[in-house]
Formats: sequence, structure tokens, C-alpha cells
Amino acid sequence: MAAWSERLAGVRGVLLDISGVLHDSGEGGGVPIPGSVEALARLKRSQLKVRFCTNESQKSRGDLVGLLRHMGFDISEGEVTAPAPATCLILKERGLRPHLLIHDGIRSEFAQIDTSNPNCVVIADAGESFSYQNMNKAFQVLMELDNPVLISLGKGRYYKETSGLMLDVGAYTKALEYACGIKAEVVGKPAPGYFQSALQEMGVESHEAIMIGDDIVGDVGGAQRCGMRALQVRTGKFRWNWGLTVKADVVILRSSVGE
Amino acid sequence: MAAWSERLAGVRGVLLDISGVLHDSGEGGGVPIPGSVEALARLKRSQLKVRFCTNESQKSRGDLVGLLRHMGFDISEGEVTAPAPATCLILKERGLRPHLLIHDGIRSEFAQIDTSNPNCVVIADAGESFSYQNMNKAFQVLMELDNPVLISLGKGRYYKETSGLMLDVGAYTKALEYACGIKAEVVGKPAPGYFQSALQEMGVESHEAIMIGDDIVGDVGGAQRCGMRALQVRTGKFRWNWGLTVKADVVILRSSVGE
Repeated sequence: MAAWSERLAGVRGVLLDISGVLHDSGEGGGVPIPGSVEALARLKRSQLKVRFCTNESQKSRGDLVGLLRHMGFDISEGEVTAPAPATCLILKERGLRPHLLIHDGIRSEFAQIDTSNPNCVVIADAGESFSYQNMNKAFQVLMELDNPVLISLGKGRYYKETSGLMLDVGAYTKALEYACGIKAEVVGKPAPGYFQSALQEMGVESHEAIMIGDDIVGDVGGAQRCGMRALQVRTGKFRWNWGLTVKADVVILRSSVGE
Repeated sequence: MAAWSERLAGVRGVLLDISGVLHDSGEGGGVPIPGSVEALARLKRSQLKVRFCTNESQKSRGDLVGLLRHMGFDISEGEVTAPAPATCLILKERGLRPHLLIHDGIRSEFAQIDTSNPNCVVIADAGESFSYQNMNKAFQVLMELDNPVLISLGKGRYYKETSGLMLDVGAYTKALEYACGIKAEVVGKPAPGYFQSALQEMGVESHEAIMIGDDIVGDVGGAQRCGMRALQVRTGKFRWNWGLTVKADVVILRSSVGE
């Protein structure tokens, strides 16, 4: 397959999305996508550097890795770039005290952050915690600020659980943006700085890296804008009827990964 | 006051917003805005035609009018242009069977509508019913449709209750638009067709009418785009720090209305 080797020429590192690529989340932690445990093991035996780049913002990095290891994936916490730790760095750097509109599962990541007298809002995939009351509280905090700052952990439209498609944080971020007349700062894919930090942690230049994901905008488009190549899997939230203004360098079925 | 008479020259009809102009909604139905019962009575004694044009979508027209009459306002159901009855006409005309993401208080307006096997979503100000589960259900219905139709009863950003500012339907409409990659059809202000139907029901041409409202976009901007004049009250959701790309023809404090 000449086309394959051409498209992947010079690749030294692989950035892997997690949800929709390794597993589908859901009740009881979800299920691994068939073939993905073996594909990851094969990747790790290869010469390629591997790092995980996720927008997961319902679970702490530790909980997520524990869940994946339990499913049989060869993954450790230090290999994962996740938005909550990246956000904590930003909050500390800028002296921001967030009102947190987040899922209880990720609250531990913010344990060291001062949340008194908030001067910004941090929104993550809060799931069932996206009640009207919680959304309205975040809205009211923003409207009270002279210079409202909204930090969004990713801006995904939706993701796939075992029970079906689920609204992601991006939809709720849009709601607050519209209500307050502001623009959120995104920490996570497809923000260029987020990909850059993952590449830096992997020790690979963007032209030597390929991103593997199921999200045509967040994974594929975002990585390409950073100078990476992108490979789209047809698992997770992949849908045939996506409006394709973004085009992946490679599109494959799960069973081919690593070949 | 020469400026006043010039600005209001030729006005034969007055369209009045309700929430934030007549009353602030809230616990127990809310409270009348000081002076507004008397101002409306004075308007009705004048030569001017009066009609009410609201985006209220939590209460049925009957319940809203009952509440306002109880507060002392001279208002009857036939004088009110409201989005739910207007939406029912559209649904019937186009053979649409809605999944309803609405407040229980307005469900009676849709009693005659077939909601089996939905081929569209109708979203209104659902308040506490904007749970994650209900939002996700509406999202899933839209994602299952080949040609997803989302009808939004108004597109307000927020409104004022006695307890503070509250997220309005527009924020949640934006969330679904973003998640599904679609654009909602708005039934309510500032949609031009909605103002036109209110003018028609009042029997007044747009250049002979003035809209009185507290919303710079929904009331003032919308009315002006239809050729009406617009008067902004500094009650309800009015805020001094609005980005003013829209400019009202007249801005007054409540106590001046009708003078």
C-alpha cells in the first residue's frame, strides 16, 4: 500500500484521542472499542512515540486511566494530556478564582484552586449537573463581572456513550456565550496551544506527528491547523453525513490501526 | 417638549412588551412595575390603539392574562400576540409533529397538536425543565431526523425575575443549534413576521406604530427593522452597559409612559 507509507512518511509520534477511539464511555465506565486494546499494544511495541490527548472533563485523569487500565489498555497517567490540569495551570498563572460548573467526578482536580469570591467561570462536561439552576448560577456570576472570563474545557458538540449520542460541554458553552454576549477561552482540542503542549510533552515536532481521533472538527481539523497529520477513525461519534469542510489525511476502520 | 411630539408624530398604535415593561415575573407570578398599571390605563383612554406583543413562553396566554388582570392591568386575551398560538398555526400548516421541550405551564396551548413520531423540535422557555436529560432528548430527536427542524419560541438571552436575571430560551436554542449544526426558526420577537402579524391584528401600518420594550435587540432592534419606531424603558432587563449597536428612538423611565 504505497499510499499509506507516503501519507505516514516521517511520522515519529502518535497522539491518540481516548473517548470514541479507545473506548465508548457510558454506564459502568463504558466498553472498549473492539480491537483497540490490541492496536494500542502494537503501537507501543513500535518505534513510534505515543501520547494521549483527550478532552475528557467528567473524570479526573487518575480515574480515567484507572478505568482504561482495567479494560486492558497500556496507559499511565503521565502519558495523558487532559484539560483540567492544563486549566489549573492557567488559573494559577492569571490569579483567577473560578466558579466551577463541572461534574463531581472531576472536582478533585481543582482541590488546590481558590474558588472564593469568583472572578471567572470554568465550564466542563458537567453531564447531569447541567441543570437550569446550575447554568443560571454560572450565568449570574458572569453577568456580575466587569470583565467576564469563561474558560471552557474543550468545545465538543457531542460524544457517544453506549446509550447513544450525548450533548457535550460545547453546547452549554455556546449557551453562556450567547446569554452573556462573550466568547469563551477554550482549553482543550481544537485549541492550538493545547495540541502544542501535548507535542512538547511527547518531544515531537508537529510535522512528525499524527493525531488519531473520531471528531472531524476537534481532532482532525484542530491537529491539521497545528501542522500535524490527522487520521480519522470511523468509531465513536463518527457519522457519514458530516458536512466535510474538514478532510482527514487518512480515514480508517478501527481494525486497521497500527498496520 | 418639541422633541417628543416630533418623534411620536403620526403614531396611531402602540405595541407593548409585557415582561419587564408591565411586570417583573417571579415567585407567585411576580410584581407589577411601579406606575405601569396607571400608565396602561392612561394609554387605553387615549386615541391610540394598543396591543401586547410578548415572547412569554412559560405560561399559556390565558394564565398570563389572568395574572396581569389580578395585578390590576386592563388586558384581555384577544389583545395579546404570543408565540405559542403562532407556533401551533405553523405546525398545522406544515404538517409538523413536534417533540416539545417546554414548560408545563404552556403545555395546554399544544393540546390539539399531534406529537406522535416527532419530525421537529419546539423549544420554549422551559425554565427548570431545561434539565440535561430533557435537552439531550431534544438533541437526540434532532440528530435522528434527515432534515432537522428546530422551532424556537423567541430567542431571548435572558429576562429579569424578582430574584434576579434568568437564562431565557435563546441560550438553550443556541446550544442545540451548535450541537446539531443547524439554525432554528424563531417564532416571536425579533422575527419580522411576528411583528407584522401583531400589527395586522392591531390594524395599524408599521410606520404608524411604536414598540415599547425593555430588550434592546428583541424589542427595539426588531421593531425598527420592521419600520416601526421603538421606545425603550429602563425597567426589566435594561442594563447600562449594553453594547449599543441598536439605538432606540426614545428611551424613558417607566414613570413617563403615556405622557
